[in-house]
Amino acid sequence: MVTTDTAPLFDRVAIVGIGLIGSSLARALAEYGIARQVVCADRNPEACAKALELGIVAEATTDLAAALAGADLVVLATPVGSFATVGEAIGPLLKRGTIVTDVGSVKQATLRDIGPHLPDGVHLIPGHPVAGTEHSGPEAGFATLFQGRWCILTPATGADRQALARVTEMWRRVGSTVEIMEASHHDRVLAITSHLPHLIAYTIVGTASDLEEDTKSEVIKFSAGGFRDFTRIAASDPVMWRDIFLNNREAVLEILQRFTEDLTALQRSIRWGEGEQLQDHFTKTRAVRRGIIDAKQA
Amino acid sequence: MVTTDTAPLFDRVAIVGIGLIGSSLARALAEYGIARQVVCADRNPEACAKALELGIVAEATTDLAAALAGADLVVLATPVGSFATVGEAIGPLLKRGTIVTDVGSVKQATLRDIGPHLPDGVHLIPGHPVAGTEHSGPEAGFATLFQGRWCILTPATGADRQALARVTEMWRRVGSTVEIMEASHHDRVLAITSHLPHLIAYTIVGTASDLEEDTKSEVIKFSAGGFRDFTRIAASDPVMWRDIFLNNREAVLEILQRFTEDLTALQRSIRWGEGEQLQDHFTKTRAVRRGIIDAKQA
Repeated sequence: MVTTDTAPLFDRVAIVGIGLIGSSLARALAEYGIARQVVCADRNPEACAKALELGIVAEATTDLAAALAGADLVVLATPVGSFATVGEAIGPLLKRGTIVTDVGSVKQATLRDIGPHLPDGVHLIPGHPVAGTEHSGPEAGFATLFQGRWCILTPATGADRQALARVTEMWRRVGSTVEIMEASHHDRVLAITSHLPHLIAYTIVGTASDLEEDTKSEVIKFSAGGFRDFTRIAASDPVMWRDIFLNNREAVLEILQRFTEDLTALQRSIRWGEGEQLQDHFTKTRAVRRGIIDAKQA
Repeated sequence: MVTTDTAPLFDRVAIVGIGLIGSSLARALAEYGIARQVVCADRNPEACAKALELGIVAEATTDLAAALAGADLVVLATPVGSFATVGEAIGPLLKRGTIVTDVGSVKQATLRDIGPHLPDGVHLIPGHPVAGTEHSGPEAGFATLFQGRWCILTPATGADRQALARVTEMWRRVGSTVEIMEASHHDRVLAITSHLPHLIAYTIVGTASDLEEDTKSEVIKFSAGGFRDFTRIAASDPVMWRDIFLNNREAVLEILQRFTEDLTALQRSIRWGEGEQLQDHFTKTRAVRRGIIDAKQA
């Protein structure tokens, strides 16, 4: 559900980092009339040139100060690992009343790395649109990316209510359903629904690519048996994922430990021919799929 | 590409086990005029009744002898773990010249468990259509399941050339591309492209379903971040997969060992904050996806 028949929410939105998510949001904000003007900053001049060429922003610059001048909303859409540096750089440029949000997949890192750099009267509303594709760069974005998806906001205790309401409304207007939760809880839930699956997919595809050349070509040929789904996940942006793992280390390592224990148990059942244990386990996992279908997330 | 303007290849095909694959093949053989008559045997009377109700077979019976009488092709479509028992049961019922094939996901097991029970003059052509869905049962099948998919045949040295040619042609007519390879090689390639991905998916979904109830409901809610793809794989038939792991034990344990080593290395990089190693690994896996897209398997 996209609403276009209401007044713009923001005068000037500055998006920092014009990759898949940044450029999708830029498109949506302009197309749905959510912002009067959308500009972007990116340290890569080629990305800026591309964004202008695509016509998705009014201005694109490598100069943060130029992009942020007059912005009432700043959206950080760079890899999570850059947040401390970006926070330090934008802090002095922000005027009172500006709202700062982000789209990072780890949320405690936003509060930790951006929060301390913001002057009084600037409102931080960390956000995570649970949406994406395995493609990267400004040309990979599209305005409908967020439709029917969740966006999780993790404001700190005492965050400005009006700022929260405006960021919530922005995501609602691009088609998302907003959920508000604590940053630490977000990081734990996403560690299992997203971070661990990506780590596993990256691992298995790496294992396959280390096989002898002739076997590897057959792995590609017969990839439809399950492997193919993993390669799609494992084609996601390497820098973005490096930063996610490094910045959600505790939660990822904790869930990885549980996963490894469970895998070892299944491995042992296979080795010792314990058919009943295997069948019981495989029957139980069917029920989880059922839950996802019932929750209309399939 | 489905060919219907040629004479039937077989007079009477008996399919043993009328689940997803058996019922899909029954439909395709009848609809595309590949067999004059398709019948089935299943030890479950309800499956037989369902197959008759769906109108996908001319006869359905729990009596193997009745189904096999007069069949010039017998297709075993039961879980791989039943093959020794099924082989023993069908051996005495087969007349000279009959062709026996199967659709099992492990191929050394077919040669080992079915081969010794077949009388002289009965031709065994083991087969594996690399196709399927996460659904089970006769009602889940459809005639087009095999179109554009691979079918791997693994005849033993000295297998009858004419029998091989007829089984090859059958799969070609249902729309598959046939590849012939050694059973042991098949089992090694499929261990990585299919068996390991399924084991991993079953594990991660099991790990999630052991979480506390409130986290679990959120895992289902936010499953779109990668987890959802795993739940689809982990909803596949439990008995079929139990039998695959028990019957391809060596190849699965070998590739699982490599996978675990690789996962442990990544885990260590996360723990010690080795960003460069992570990024290098994630960049390498992108190339494998590229290979799959180039091979038109994506």
